[in-house]
Amino acid sequence: MRLVLVSASPRRRALLKKLGLKFSVRRPETPEKIRDAHFKKDLARTALAKINSVPFRPEEALIACDTIVVCRGRVLGKPRGIKQAAEFLRLLSGRRHAVYSCLALKYQHGGPAVVRHKIAVTKVYFRGISPAEIKAYVRSGAPYDKAGGYGIQDSLFARKICGCYYNVMGLPVSVLIDMLKAVKNKEK
Amino acid sequence: MRLVLVSASPRRRALLKKLGLKFSVRRPETPEKIRDAHFKKDLARTALAKINSVPFRPEEALIACDTIVVCRGRVLGKPRGIKQAAEFLRLLSGRRHAVYSCLALKYQHGGPAVVRHKIAVTKVYFRGISPAEIKAYVRSGAPYDKAGGYGIQDSLFARKICGCYYNVMGLPVSVLIDMLKAVKNKEK
Repeated sequence: MRLVLVSASPRRRALLKKLGLKFSVRRPETPEKIRDAHFKKDLARTALAKINSVPFRPEEALIACDTIVVCRGRVLGKPRGIKQAAEFLRLLSGRRHAVYSCLALKYQHGGPAVVRHKIAVTKVYFRGISPAEIKAYVRSGAPYDKAGGYGIQDSLFARKICGCYYNVMGLPVSVLIDMLKAVKNKEK
Repeated sequence: MRLVLVSASPRRRALLKKLGLKFSVRRPETPEKIRDAHFKKDLARTALAKINSVPFRPEEALIACDTIVVCRGRVLGKPRGIKQAAEFLRLLSGRRHAVYSCLALKYQHGGPAVVRHKIAVTKVYFRGISPAEIKAYVRSGAPYDKAGGYGIQDSLFARKICGCYYNVMGLPVSVLIDMLKAVKNKEK
């Protein structure tokens, strides 16, 4: 079974590499928009759209993932610019939010291709962030390729988290390990 | 107020630097042993012994911290060698443990020097780690300068955490920010 990561994210690539797995990378199509009122359904749809946007061969296992931040009923994706990045951080400051990732896995043994997906959620509590900290972080360039406009590994805004840490970075590692184990057990 | 980090830990130094604070570093004396049955008391005593083991000047604020891992009633400090590092990981595999840090702050304004301390706790749940993963991690050299024999930032063993992430890295950042704010407010 050859592993393929369907993602353009350098953080997902780094996490998968750290797991000691061999894999190649395919870039997915840019996904559709996620609506506030239907974010779970749309998140799953996006992860599945990603995984189905690239070629698939029977001996492969494709992995795709999509991550969003939800705060006060609002879905925060990647900020579009300096203004929106600062707006996101002001919204998150001193509040609890949730990070949702949908992990999708596509594989085949014998019959037609099978796609499995699972959503993982981590609650994150931010301390109060000062305007000076927001300004410095937004200027650092860190927010722009990250859902919610922050990286938990490159900021110190989280007072507390509850759930999978790697999920906040963009890949729910233990969910992935469980999924891959289940596929291997079926192959036996 | 000049900030001094009383620690030999490169991770504490990196976290403090990321907060944008200016500080100098002083190496503390090696602390005493922490007993399983009295770990909270001993942990506080160790943090205070560290902060009191270096010179202090009235215009300074000293920060010291000590971190331990507690699993099944047993205190895990830094592993003494490859055998103990592997033993620690086998104990932690598939189980919940707690990471305790005691943060101590020493400062002075007007009267005699004041020392404050606070213990922060984070619960960490490990997935099952395979013998091959333990072997690879132990051989990487990562366990030996870390309480419990793992780094949350350089391993992927945690399935879930509940509490401050930076505390697991060795410095409860939001506790530190609150302590420093309290001191600054008193100075006014």
